[in-house]
Amino acid sequence: MRITKVGEFGLIRRLQRKIITDASVVKGSGDDCAVLRLDKRRYQLFTCDMLVEAVDFRPREKPQLIGRKAVAVSVSDIAACGGRPRYLLISVGLPLKTDLAYAEGIFQGALGMSRKYGINLVGGDISKSDKLVIDVSMLGEVKKSRLVLRSGAKKGDFIFVTGALGGSIKGRHLRFAPRLPEAGFLTQNFKINAMIDISDGLIQDLGHILEQSNCGALIYEELVPLSPQADGLADALYSGEDFELLFSLSSREAKRLMALKNNFYKFIGQIIPQEYGLLLADDSGRIRQPRAQGYRHF
Amino acid sequence: MRITKVGEFGLIRRLQRKIITDASVVKGSGDDCAVLRLDKRRYQLFTCDMLVEAVDFRPREKPQLIGRKAVAVSVSDIAACGGRPRYLLISVGLPLKTDLAYAEGIFQGALGMSRKYGINLVGGDISKSDKLVIDVSMLGEVKKSRLVLRSGAKKGDFIFVTGALGGSIKGRHLRFAPRLPEAGFLTQNFKINAMIDISDGLIQDLGHILEQSNCGALIYEELVPLSPQADGLADALYSGEDFELLFSLSSREAKRLMALKNNFYKFIGQIIPQEYGLLLADDSGRIRQPRAQGYRHF
Repeated sequence: MRITKVGEFGLIRRLQRKIITDASVVKGSGDDCAVLRLDKRRYQLFTCDMLVEAVDFRPREKPQLIGRKAVAVSVSDIAACGGRPRYLLISVGLPLKTDLAYAEGIFQGALGMSRKYGINLVGGDISKSDKLVIDVSMLGEVKKSRLVLRSGAKKGDFIFVTGALGGSIKGRHLRFAPRLPEAGFLTQNFKINAMIDISDGLIQDLGHILEQSNCGALIYEELVPLSPQADGLADALYSGEDFELLFSLSSREAKRLMALKNNFYKFIGQIIPQEYGLLLADDSGRIRQPRAQGYRHF
Repeated sequence: MRITKVGEFGLIRRLQRKIITDASVVKGSGDDCAVLRLDKRRYQLFTCDMLVEAVDFRPREKPQLIGRKAVAVSVSDIAACGGRPRYLLISVGLPLKTDLAYAEGIFQGALGMSRKYGINLVGGDISKSDKLVIDVSMLGEVKKSRLVLRSGAKKGDFIFVTGALGGSIKGRHLRFAPRLPEAGFLTQNFKINAMIDISDGLIQDLGHILEQSNCGALIYEELVPLSPQADGLADALYSGEDFELLFSLSSREAKRLMALKNNFYKFIGQIIPQEYGLLLADDSGRIRQPRAQGYRHF
Protein backbone atom coordinates (compact mmCIF):
# COMPACT_ATOMS: atom_id res chain seq x y z
CA MET A 1 0.00 0.00 0.00
CA ARG A 2 1.31 3.44 -0.99
CA ILE A 3 1.61 6.27 1.56
CA THR A 4 -0.75 8.25 -0.69
CA LYS A 5 -3.50 5.85 0.41
CA VAL A 6 -3.41 6.96 4.06
CA GLY A 7 -2.24 10.50 3.26
CA GLU A 8 0.17 12.79 5.09
CA PHE A 9 -1.90 13.17 8.24
CA GLY A 10 -3.01 9.53 8.24
CA LEU A 11 0.65 8.50 8.21
CA ILE A 12 1.50 10.96 10.99
CA ARG A 13 -1.35 9.63 13.17
CA ARG A 14 -0.18 6.03 12.64
CA LEU A 15 3.34 6.95 13.69
CA GLN A 16 2.32 9.10 16.66
CA ARG A 17 0.49 6.18 18.27
CA LYS A 18 3.76 4.35 18.83
CA ILE A 19 5.56 7.16 20.62
CA ILE A 20 6.05 7.15 24.38
CA THR A 21 7.78 10.07 26.09
CA ASP A 22 8.96 10.70 29.64
CA ALA A 23 7.69 13.27 32.14
CA SER A 24 10.11 15.96 30.93
CA VAL A 25 8.08 16.24 27.71
CA VAL A 26 5.13 18.60 28.21
CA LYS A 27 3.93 18.17 24.62
CA GLY A 28 5.48 15.83 22.03
CA SER A 29 4.48 15.65 18.38
CA GLY A 30 1.16 17.12 17.29
CA ASP A 31 1.68 20.82 17.86
CA ASP A 32 3.71 23.56 16.17
CA CYS A 33 6.62 22.79 18.50
CA ALA A 34 7.57 20.13 21.00
CA VAL A 35 7.42 21.57 24.52
CA LEU A 36 10.08 20.46 27.03
CA ARG A 37 10.62 21.32 30.69
CA LEU A 38 13.44 23.86 31.04
CA ASP A 39 13.34 25.48 34.50
CA LYS A 40 10.84 26.78 37.04
CA ARG A 41 9.76 29.69 34.92
CA ARG A 42 10.14 28.52 31.32
CA TYR A 43 9.58 25.75 28.81
CA GLN A 44 11.86 25.02 25.90
CA LEU A 45 10.37 24.81 22.38
CA PHE A 46 11.88 22.54 19.72
CA THR A 47 10.77 22.42 16.09
CA CYS A 48 12.03 21.48 12.63
CA ASP A 49 10.90 22.11 9.07
CA MET A 50 12.13 20.58 5.85
CA LEU A 51 12.02 22.58 2.61
CA VAL A 52 12.40 20.69 -0.64
CA GLU A 53 13.15 22.03 -4.13
CA ALA A 54 10.09 22.15 -6.42
CA VAL A 55 7.78 21.61 -3.41
CA ASP A 56 8.53 24.58 -1.14
CA PHE A 57 10.44 26.73 -3.60
CA ARG A 58 11.60 26.76 -7.21
CA PRO A 59 15.37 26.47 -7.59
CA ARG A 60 15.48 29.61 -9.76
CA GLU A 61 14.24 31.78 -6.88
CA LYS A 62 16.85 34.00 -5.29
CA PRO A 63 18.86 31.81 -2.90
CA GLN A 64 18.66 34.52 -0.20
CA LEU A 65 14.87 34.18 -0.24
CA ILE A 66 15.05 30.39 0.02
CA GLY A 67 17.36 30.59 3.04
CA ARG A 68 15.19 33.31 4.53
CA LYS A 69 12.06 31.18 4.21
CA ALA A 70 13.76 28.11 5.72
CA VAL A 71 14.32 30.10 8.92
CA ALA A 72 11.03 32.03 8.81
CA VAL A 73 8.82 28.93 8.85
CA SER A 74 10.41 27.73 12.09
CA VAL A 75 10.19 31.19 13.65
CA SER A 76 6.49 31.07 12.78
CA ASP A 77 6.16 27.74 14.64
CA ILE A 78 7.82 29.18 17.74
CA ALA A 79 5.56 32.27 17.52
CA ALA A 80 2.47 30.03 17.33
CA CYS A 81 3.41 28.56 20.72
CA GLY A 82 3.88 32.03 22.23
CA GLY A 83 7.66 31.68 22.42
CA ARG A 84 10.87 33.42 21.52
CA PRO A 85 13.34 31.75 19.07
CA ARG A 86 16.90 31.35 20.39
CA TYR A 87 19.06 28.87 18.46
CA LEU A 88 19.02 27.14 15.09
CA LEU A 89 20.85 24.50 13.12
CA ILE A 90 20.62 24.32 9.34
CA SER A 91 21.15 21.15 7.28
CA VAL A 92 21.52 21.65 3.54
CA GLY A 93 21.64 19.05 0.78
CA LEU A 94 23.31 20.59 -2.29
CA PRO A 95 23.62 19.29 -5.86
CA LEU A 96 27.27 19.00 -6.96
CA LYS A 97 26.73 21.52 -9.74
CA THR A 98 25.64 24.21 -7.24
CA ASP A 99 27.27 27.58 -7.74
CA LEU A 100 29.28 28.81 -4.76
CA ALA A 101 27.47 32.17 -4.79
CA TYR A 102 24.12 30.35 -4.76
CA ALA A 103 25.12 28.20 -1.77
CA GLU A 104 26.41 31.25 0.07
CA GLY A 105 23.22 33.12 -0.85
CA ILE A 106 21.06 30.49 0.87
CA PHE A 107 23.22 30.79 3.94
CA GLN A 108 23.19 34.60 3.85
CA GLY A 109 19.39 34.57 3.69
CA ALA A 110 19.19 32.20 6.66
CA LEU A 111 21.75 34.19 8.62
CA GLY A 112 20.06 37.53 7.88
CA MET A 113 16.72 36.21 9.08
CA SER A 114 18.36 34.75 12.19
CA ARG A 115 20.00 38.06 13.05
CA LYS A 116 16.76 39.96 12.51
CA TYR A 117 15.09 37.89 15.21
CA GLY A 118 18.10 37.61 17.51
CA ILE A 119 18.55 33.88 16.90
CA ASN A 120 21.96 32.23 17.22
CA LEU A 121 22.90 30.11 14.21
CA VAL A 122 25.01 27.48 15.96
CA GLY A 123 25.84 24.95 13.25
CA GLY A 124 24.46 22.47 10.80
CA ASP A 125 25.28 19.84 8.25
CA ILE A 126 26.15 19.94 4.55
CA SER A 127 25.52 16.96 2.30
CA LYS A 128 25.43 16.34 -1.39
CA SER A 129 21.98 15.70 -2.81
CA ASP A 130 20.36 15.47 -6.27
CA LYS A 131 17.93 18.22 -5.39
CA LEU A 132 18.31 21.13 -3.03
CA VAL A 133 16.85 20.35 0.40
CA ILE A 134 17.06 22.44 3.58
CA ASP A 135 16.09 21.43 7.08
CA VAL A 136 16.10 23.96 9.90
CA SER A 137 15.74 22.89 13.51
CA MET A 138 15.10 25.60 16.04
CA LEU A 139 15.10 25.97 19.80
CA GLY A 140 13.05 28.61 21.57
CA GLU A 141 11.77 29.35 25.01
CA VAL A 142 8.47 30.48 26.46
CA LYS A 143 7.33 31.61 29.89
CA LYS A 144 5.12 28.86 31.26
CA SER A 145 2.19 31.25 31.65
CA ARG A 146 2.42 32.25 27.97
CA LEU A 147 2.57 28.84 26.33
CA VAL A 148 -0.23 28.36 23.80
CA LEU A 149 -1.06 24.98 22.28
CA ARG A 150 -3.50 23.83 19.61
CA SER A 151 -5.43 21.94 22.24
CA GLY A 152 -6.78 24.79 24.38
CA ALA A 153 -9.74 26.06 22.32
CA LYS A 154 -13.00 26.23 24.30
CA LYS A 155 -16.61 26.27 23.16
CA GLY A 156 -17.72 29.87 22.76
CA ASP A 157 -14.19 31.13 21.97
CA PHE A 158 -13.94 33.73 19.26
CA ILE A 159 -11.60 32.92 16.39
CA PHE A 160 -9.17 35.44 14.88
CA VAL A 161 -6.42 35.62 12.25
CA THR A 162 -3.47 38.01 12.19
CA GLY A 163 -3.79 39.00 8.53
CA ALA A 164 -5.14 38.43 5.05
CA LEU A 165 -5.11 34.99 3.46
CA GLY A 166 -4.70 33.42 0.03
CA GLY A 167 -2.38 33.72 -2.96
CA SER A 168 0.77 33.40 -0.88
CA ILE A 169 2.25 31.07 -3.48
CA LYS A 170 2.49 34.03 -5.90
CA GLY A 171 5.46 35.26 -3.90
CA ARG A 172 4.51 36.19 -0.36
CA HIS A 173 5.56 32.73 0.92
CA LEU A 174 9.18 33.70 0.23
CA ARG A 175 9.04 37.10 1.91
CA PHE A 176 6.54 36.78 4.76
CA ALA A 177 7.41 38.23 8.16
CA PRO A 178 6.69 35.63 10.85
CA ARG A 179 4.08 36.98 13.27
CA LEU A 180 6.48 36.94 16.18
CA PRO A 181 5.84 40.49 17.52
CA GLU A 182 2.09 39.92 17.17
CA ALA A 183 2.26 36.61 19.05
CA GLY A 184 4.28 38.35 21.75
CA PHE A 185 1.73 41.14 22.03
CA LEU A 186 -1.18 38.70 22.15
CA THR A 187 0.25 36.31 24.74
CA GLN A 188 1.48 39.18 26.89
CA ASN A 189 -1.85 41.03 26.98
CA PHE A 190 -4.54 38.40 26.45
CA LYS A 191 -5.37 34.88 27.53
CA ILE A 192 -5.01 33.07 24.20
CA ASN A 193 -6.62 29.63 24.45
CA ALA A 194 -5.33 28.03 21.23
CA MET A 195 -3.05 29.08 18.39
CA ILE A 196 -1.52 27.65 15.19
CA ASP A 197 0.27 29.15 12.21
CA ILE A 198 -1.54 28.69 8.90
CA SER A 199 0.86 26.70 6.74
CA ASP A 200 -1.55 24.28 5.00
CA GLY A 201 -4.62 26.51 4.60
CA LEU A 202 -7.08 28.05 7.08
CA ILE A 203 -9.56 25.16 7.01
CA GLN A 204 -6.98 22.42 7.45
CA ASP A 205 -5.06 24.20 10.20
CA LEU A 206 -8.25 25.16 12.01
CA GLY A 207 -9.07 21.44 11.74
CA HIS A 208 -5.91 20.69 13.74
CA ILE A 209 -7.04 23.02 16.54
CA LEU A 210 -10.51 21.44 16.53
CA GLU A 211 -9.13 17.90 16.58
CA GLN A 212 -6.76 18.65 19.46
CA SER A 213 -9.38 20.66 21.37
CA ASN A 214 -12.34 18.35 20.71
CA CYS A 215 -14.39 21.21 19.33
CA GLY A 216 -16.16 22.39 16.20
CA ALA A 217 -16.11 25.84 14.58
CA LEU A 218 -18.31 28.15 12.56
CA ILE A 219 -16.46 30.46 10.16
CA TYR A 220 -18.14 33.47 8.54
CA GLU A 221 -17.00 33.47 4.94
CA GLU A 222 -17.60 37.20 4.62
CA LEU A 223 -15.20 37.90 7.48
CA VAL A 224 -12.26 35.91 6.14
CA PRO A 225 -9.77 38.62 5.09
CA LEU A 226 -8.61 38.12 1.49
CA SER A 227 -5.12 39.14 0.50
CA PRO A 228 -4.79 41.19 -2.71
CA GLN A 229 -3.19 38.12 -4.32
CA ALA A 230 -6.01 35.75 -3.28
CA ASP A 231 -7.90 34.12 -6.12
CA GLY A 232 -11.28 34.30 -4.37
CA LEU A 233 -12.50 32.88 -1.07
CA ALA A 234 -11.58 29.25 -1.80
CA ASP A 235 -7.97 30.31 -2.22
CA ALA A 236 -8.04 32.01 1.20
CA LEU A 237 -9.66 28.97 2.81
CA TYR A 238 -7.64 26.16 1.30
CA SER A 239 -4.30 27.32 -0.06
CA GLY A 240 -1.24 27.03 2.13
CA GLU A 241 1.84 29.03 3.08
CA ASP A 242 0.05 32.07 4.56
CA PHE A 243 1.96 31.85 7.84
CA GLU A 244 -0.60 34.05 9.55
CA LEU A 245 -1.56 33.05 13.08
CA LEU A 246 -4.99 31.59 13.76
CA PHE A 247 -6.07 31.79 17.40
CA SER A 248 -9.03 31.62 19.73
CA LEU A 249 -9.83 33.36 23.00
CA SER A 250 -12.87 33.74 25.24
CA SER A 251 -15.58 36.16 24.12
CA ARG A 252 -14.64 38.38 27.05
CA GLU A 253 -11.00 38.53 26.03
CA ALA A 254 -12.09 38.92 22.41
CA LYS A 255 -14.09 42.01 23.27
CA ARG A 256 -10.98 43.56 24.82
CA LEU A 257 -9.01 42.68 21.67
CA MET A 258 -11.66 44.14 19.36
CA ALA A 259 -11.72 47.35 21.40
CA LEU A 260 -8.07 48.06 20.61
CA LYS A 261 -7.29 51.09 18.50
CA ASN A 262 -5.80 50.16 15.13
CA ASN A 263 -6.81 46.57 15.77
CA PHE A 264 -5.65 44.50 12.84
CA TYR A 265 -6.58 41.11 14.29
CA LYS A 266 -9.56 39.88 12.29
CA PHE A 267 -12.52 38.11 13.89
CA ILE A 268 -13.65 35.28 11.60
CA GLY A 269 -15.90 32.96 13.65
CA GLN A 270 -16.59 30.99 16.80
CA ILE A 271 -15.63 27.71 18.45
CA ILE A 272 -18.75 25.52 18.77
CA PRO A 273 -19.46 22.01 20.12
CA GLN A 274 -17.57 19.17 18.47
CA GLU A 275 -20.68 17.47 17.07
CA TYR A 276 -21.20 20.29 14.56
CA GLY A 277 -17.76 19.83 13.05
CA LEU A 278 -16.26 22.64 10.97
CA LEU A 279 -18.92 24.79 9.29
CA LEU A 280 -18.93 27.77 6.95
CA ALA A 281 -21.69 30.41 6.92
CA ASP A 282 -22.15 32.44 3.72
CA ASP A 283 -23.52 35.97 3.32
CA SER A 284 -27.11 34.71 3.20
CA GLY A 285 -26.63 32.87 6.51
CA ARG A 286 -26.65 29.48 4.77
CA ILE A 287 -24.40 26.98 6.55
CA ARG A 288 -22.35 24.32 4.76
CA GLN A 289 -19.36 22.09 5.25
CA PRO A 290 -16.03 22.97 3.61
CA ARG A 291 -15.65 21.51 0.13
CA ALA A 292 -11.97 20.76 0.32
CA GLN A 293 -9.15 20.24 2.77
CA GLY A 294 -5.96 22.12 2.12
CA TYR A 295 -2.38 21.42 1.25
CA ARG A 296 -1.19 17.87 1.81
CA HIS A 297 2.19 16.53 0.76
CA PHE A 298 0.53 13.23 -0.22
CA MET B 1 32.41 29.05 -9.45
CA ARG B 2 31.09 25.65 -8.40
CA ILE B 3 31.03 24.58 -4.74
CA THR B 4 33.27 21.66 -5.75
CA LYS B 5 36.04 24.24 -6.28
CA VAL B 6 36.22 25.19 -2.59
CA GLY B 7 35.08 21.78 -1.32
CA GLU B 8 32.84 20.85 1.59
CA PHE B 9 35.13 22.14 4.31
CA GLY B 10 36.17 25.21 2.34
CA LEU B 11 32.51 26.14 2.00
CA ILE B 12 31.89 25.53 5.71
CA ARG B 13 34.85 27.75 6.66
CA ARG B 14 33.59 30.55 4.39
CA LEU B 15 30.16 30.40 6.02
CA GLN B 16 31.43 30.11 9.60
CA ARG B 17 33.31 33.40 9.29
CA LYS B 18 30.05 35.32 9.04
CA ILE B 19 28.43 33.91 12.18
CA ILE B 20 28.21 35.91 15.38
CA THR B 21 26.66 34.34 18.48
CA ASP B 22 25.75 35.70 21.92
CA ALA B 23 27.24 34.80 25.29
CA SER B 24 24.80 31.92 25.84
CA VAL B 25 26.61 29.96 23.12
CA VAL B 26 29.62 28.15 24.58
CA LYS B 27 30.56 26.61 21.22
CA GLY B 28 28.78 27.26 17.91
CA SER B 29 29.52 25.47 14.65
CA GLY B 30 32.80 23.59 14.26
CA ASP B 31 32.38 20.76 16.74
CA ASP B 32 30.30 17.58 16.87
CA CYS B 33 27.54 19.52 18.65
CA ALA B 34 26.72 23.12 19.43
CA VAL B 35 27.14 23.74 23.17
CA LEU B 36 24.65 26.05 24.90
CA ARG B 37 24.37 27.26 28.49
CA LEU B 38 21.63 25.32 30.31
CA ASP B 39 22.00 25.75 34.09
CA LYS B 40 24.69 25.94 36.76
CA ARG B 41 25.68 22.34 36.42
CA ARG B 42 25.03 21.44 32.79
CA TYR B 43 25.36 22.48 29.15
CA GLN B 44 22.86 21.61 26.45
CA LEU B 45 24.12 19.92 23.26
CA PHE B 46 22.39 20.50 19.92
CA THR B 47 23.23 18.66 16.69
CA CYS B 48 21.72 17.67 13.35
CA ASP B 49 22.60 15.24 10.58
CA MET B 50 21.14 14.87 7.13
CA LEU B 51 21.06 11.46 5.42
CA VAL B 52 20.42 11.38 1.70
CA GLU B 53 19.45 8.41 -0.51
CA ALA B 54 22.34 7.06 -2.59
CA VAL B 55 24.84 9.04 -0.48
CA ASP B 56 24.32 7.71 3.05
CA PHE B 57 22.27 4.63 2.21
CA ARG B 58 20.87 2.73 -0.74
CA PRO B 59 17.08 2.86 -0.95
CA ARG B 60 16.86 -0.94 -1.14
CA GLU B 61 18.34 -1.30 2.36
CA LYS B 62 15.90 -2.32 5.06
CA PRO B 63 14.03 0.84 6.06
CA GLN B 64 14.46 -0.03 9.76
CA LEU B 65 18.24 0.15 9.29
CA ILE B 66 18.00 3.52 7.53
CA GLY B 67 15.90 4.98 10.36
CA ARG B 68 18.21 3.41 12.89
CA LYS B 69 21.28 4.99 11.29
CA ALA B 70 19.63 8.42 11.09
CA VAL B 71 19.34 8.43 14.88
CA ALA B 72 22.64 6.66 15.58
CA VAL B 73 24.79 9.28 13.82
CA SER B 74 23.41 12.03 16.05
CA VAL B 75 23.81 9.88 19.18
CA SER B 76 27.43 9.47 18.13
CA ASP B 77 27.84 13.28 17.93
CA ILE B 78 26.42 13.71 21.44
CA ALA B 79 28.70 10.92 22.71
CA ALA B 80 31.73 12.65 21.17
CA CYS B 81 31.01 15.71 23.35
CA GLY B 82 30.69 13.55 26.47
CA GLY B 83 26.94 14.03 26.72
CA ARG B 84 23.69 12.15 27.08
CA PRO B 85 21.06 12.34 24.30
CA ARG B 86 17.61 13.44 25.46
CA TYR B 87 15.25 14.57 22.66
CA LEU B 88 15.04 14.28 18.90
CA LEU B 89 13.01 15.53 15.97
CA ILE B 90 12.97 13.69 12.65
CA SER B 91 12.24 15.31 9.27
CA VAL B 92 11.63 12.93 6.39
CA GLY B 93 11.25 13.69 2.69
CA LEU B 94 9.41 10.79 1.01
CA PRO B 95 8.83 10.05 -2.70
CA LEU B 96 5.12 9.79 -3.53
CA LYS B 97 5.50 6.17 -4.59
CA THR B 98 6.82 5.17 -1.13
CA ASP B 99 5.22 2.07 0.32
CA LEU B 100 3.45 2.64 3.64
CA ALA B 101 5.31 -0.27 5.25
CA TYR B 102 8.62 1.22 4.08
CA ALA B 103 7.79 4.64 5.57
CA GLU B 104 6.68 3.03 8.82
CA GLY B 105 9.84 0.91 8.80
CA ILE B 106 12.07 4.00 8.74
CA PHE B 107 10.13 5.40 11.63
CA GLN B 108 10.23 2.12 13.57
CA GLY B 109 13.99 1.98 13.15
CA ALA B 110 14.36 5.54 14.41
CA LEU B 111 11.98 4.93 17.30
CA GLY B 112 13.67 1.67 18.30
CA MET B 113 17.07 3.35 18.40
CA SER B 114 15.63 6.27 20.38
CA ARG B 115 14.12 3.94 22.97
CA LYS B 116 17.34 1.98 23.28
CA TYR B 117 19.17 5.13 24.37
CA GLY B 118 16.31 6.62 26.38
CA ILE B 119 15.76 9.48 23.94
CA ASN B 120 12.34 11.13 23.58
CA LEU B 121 11.17 11.36 19.96
CA VAL B 122 9.13 14.55 20.22
CA GLY B 123 8.05 15.30 16.67
CA GLY B 124 9.20 16.10 13.19
CA ASP B 125 8.16 17.02 9.70
CA ILE B 126 7.05 15.01 6.67
CA SER B 127 7.46 16.34 3.15
CA LYS B 128 7.29 14.93 -0.33
CA SER B 129 10.61 14.66 -2.09
CA ASP B 130 11.98 13.02 -5.26
CA LYS B 131 14.53 11.09 -3.24
CA LEU B 132 14.37 9.85 0.31
CA VAL B 133 16.03 12.29 2.71
CA ILE B 134 16.10 12.20 6.52
CA ASP B 135 17.28 14.87 8.89
CA VAL B 136 17.52 14.20 12.61
CA SER B 137 18.11 17.00 15.10
CA MET B 138 18.98 16.02 18.62
CA LEU B 139 19.25 17.67 22.00
CA GLY B 140 21.45 16.31 24.73
CA GLU B 141 22.99 17.46 27.95
CA VAL B 142 26.39 17.20 29.56
CA LYS B 143 27.79 18.02 32.98
CA LYS B 144 30.05 21.03 32.55
CA SER B 145 33.02 19.12 33.94
CA ARG B 146 32.56 16.35 31.37
CA LEU B 147 32.23 18.40 28.19
CA VAL B 148 34.84 17.42 25.61
CA LEU B 149 35.51 19.48 22.47
CA ARG B 150 37.72 19.02 19.44
CA SER B 151 39.81 21.96 20.55
CA GLY B 152 41.33 20.62 23.76
CA ALA B 153 44.18 18.40 22.50
CA LYS B 154 47.57 19.21 24.03
CA LYS B 155 51.10 18.50 22.85
CA GLY B 156 52.24 15.20 24.31
CA ASP B 157 48.69 13.81 24.56
CA PHE B 158 48.32 10.17 23.63
CA ILE B 159 45.74 9.40 20.93
CA PHE B 160 43.27 6.52 21.13
CA VAL B 161 40.35 5.05 19.19
CA THR B 162 37.44 3.04 20.60
CA GLY B 163 37.52 0.28 18.00
CA ALA B 164 38.61 -1.11 14.64
CA LEU B 165 38.42 0.99 11.50
CA GLY B 166 37.73 0.54 7.79
CA GLY B 167 35.23 -1.25 5.58
CA SER B 168 32.21 0.20 7.36
CA ILE B 169 30.53 0.85 4.03
CA LYS B 170 30.18 -2.95 3.56
CA GLY B 171 27.36 -2.87 6.11
CA ARG B 172 28.59 -1.82 9.52
CA HIS B 173 27.56 1.81 8.88
CA LEU B 174 23.92 0.70 9.05
CA ARG B 175 24.25 -1.31 12.25
CA PHE B 176 26.92 0.41 14.33
CA ALA B 177 26.33 0.96 18.03
CA PRO B 178 27.19 4.57 18.92
CA ARG B 179 29.99 4.65 21.49
CA LEU B 180 27.77 6.27 24.09
CA PRO B 181 28.58 3.94 27.03
CA GLU B 182 32.27 4.15 26.18
CA ALA B 183 32.17 7.96 26.07
CA GLY B 184 30.37 7.93 29.41
CA PHE B 185 33.00 5.64 30.93
CA LEU B 186 35.85 7.72 29.56
CA THR B 187 34.56 11.15 30.60
CA GLN B 188 33.56 9.86 34.02
CA ASN B 189 36.90 8.26 34.80
CA PHE B 190 39.50 10.16 32.81
CA LYS B 191 40.33 13.71 31.85
CA ILE B 192 39.72 13.51 28.09
CA ASN B 193 41.28 16.54 26.38
CA ALA B 194 39.74 16.24 22.90
CA MET B 195 37.29 13.90 21.18
CA ILE B 196 35.52 13.48 17.82
CA ASP B 197 33.56 10.69 16.21
CA ILE B 198 35.12 9.30 13.04
CA SER B 199 32.55 9.90 10.32
CA ASP B 200 34.78 11.01 7.43
CA GLY B 201 37.85 8.83 8.04
CA LEU B 202 40.52 8.77 10.79
CA ILE B 203 42.92 11.14 9.03
CA GLN B 204 40.32 13.76 8.15
CA ASP B 205 38.63 13.72 11.54
CA LEU B 206 41.97 13.79 13.36
CA GLY B 207 42.70 16.78 11.14
CA HIS B 208 39.66 18.54 12.64
CA ILE B 209 41.04 18.01 16.16
CA LEU B 210 44.46 19.27 15.08
CA GLU B 211 43.03 22.34 13.37
CA GLN B 212 40.88 23.27 16.36
CA SER B 213 43.65 22.49 18.87
CA ASN B 214 46.53 24.06 16.89
CA CYS B 215 48.52 20.85 17.10
CA GLY B 216 50.09 18.17 14.94
CA ALA B 217 49.99 14.39 15.37
CA LEU B 218 52.09 11.32 14.72
CA ILE B 219 50.14 8.14 14.03
CA TYR B 220 51.74 4.69 14.12
CA GLU B 221 50.35 2.82 11.14
CA GLU B 222 51.00 -0.54 12.79
CA LEU B 223 48.82 0.41 15.74
CA VAL B 224 45.74 1.47 13.76
CA PRO B 225 43.25 -1.32 14.46
CA LEU B 226 41.84 -2.78 11.23
CA SER B 227 38.30 -4.08 11.16
CA PRO B 228 37.80 -7.52 9.53
CA GLN B 229 36.03 -5.71 6.66
CA ALA B 230 38.86 -3.21 6.10
CA ASP B 231 40.54 -3.36 2.72
CA GLY B 232 44.01 -2.65 4.06
CA LEU B 233 45.44 0.26 6.02
CA ALA B 234 44.41 2.98 3.57
CA ASP B 235 40.78 1.95 4.02
CA ALA B 236 41.13 2.28 7.81
CA LEU B 237 42.81 5.67 7.48
CA TYR B 238 40.65 7.32 4.86
CA SER B 239 37.23 5.70 4.53
CA GLY B 240 34.32 7.16 6.44
CA GLU B 241 31.37 6.02 8.51
CA ASP B 242 33.28 4.16 11.23
CA PHE B 243 31.63 6.12 14.04
CA GLU B 244 34.34 5.09 16.47
CA LEU B 245 35.52 7.78 18.88
CA LEU B 246 38.96 9.30 18.44
CA PHE B 247 40.29 11.02 21.58
CA SER B 248 43.40 12.32 23.26
CA LEU B 249 44.45 12.53 26.89
CA SER B 250 47.65 13.32 28.78
CA SER B 251 50.32 10.63 28.91
CA ARG B 252 49.63 10.28 32.63
CA GLU B 253 45.91 9.69 32.09
CA ALA B 254 46.76 7.43 29.14
CA LYS B 255 48.90 5.21 31.37
CA ARG B 256 45.91 4.77 33.69
CA LEU B 257 43.72 3.92 30.70
CA MET B 258 46.23 1.41 29.32
CA ALA B 259 46.50 -0.25 32.72
CA LEU B 260 42.80 -1.19 32.68
CA LYS B 261 41.93 -4.85 32.56
CA ASN B 262 40.19 -5.81 29.32
CA ASN B 263 41.18 -2.44 27.89
CA PHE B 264 39.78 -2.18 24.40
CA TYR B 265 40.76 1.43 23.79
CA LYS B 266 43.55 1.38 21.25
CA PHE B 267 46.58 3.65 21.45
CA ILE B 268 47.51 4.84 17.96
CA GLY B 269 49.84 7.84 18.32
CA GLN B 270 50.70 11.14 19.91
CA ILE B 271 49.83 14.83 19.66
CA ILE B 272 52.91 16.79 18.58
CA PRO B 273 53.63 20.46 17.85
CA GLN B 274 51.60 22.06 15.07
CA GLU B 275 54.57 22.72 12.77
CA TYR B 276 54.97 18.98 12.10
CA GLY B 277 51.41 18.66 10.81
CA LEU B 278 49.85 15.21 10.62
CA LEU B 279 52.42 12.45 10.15
CA LEU B 280 52.31 8.68 9.73
CA ALA B 281 55.10 6.35 10.91
CA ASP B 282 55.39 2.94 9.22
CA ASP B 283 56.79 -0.30 10.65
CA SER B 284 60.35 0.64 9.64
CA GLY B 285 60.05 3.95 11.50
CA ARG B 286 59.88 5.93 8.28
CA ILE B 287 57.72 9.02 8.61
CA ARG B 288 55.50 10.39 5.83
CA GLN B 289 52.51 12.61 5.28
CA PRO B 290 49.10 11.07 4.57
CA ARG B 291 48.45 10.50 0.88
CA ALA B 292 44.76 11.30 0.89
CA GLN B 293 42.13 13.12 2.89
CA GLY B 294 38.92 11.23 3.55
CA TYR B 295 35.27 11.46 2.69
CA ARG B 296 34.06 14.80 1.40
CA HIS B 297 30.60 15.45 0.00
CA PHE B 298 32.14 17.70 -2.66
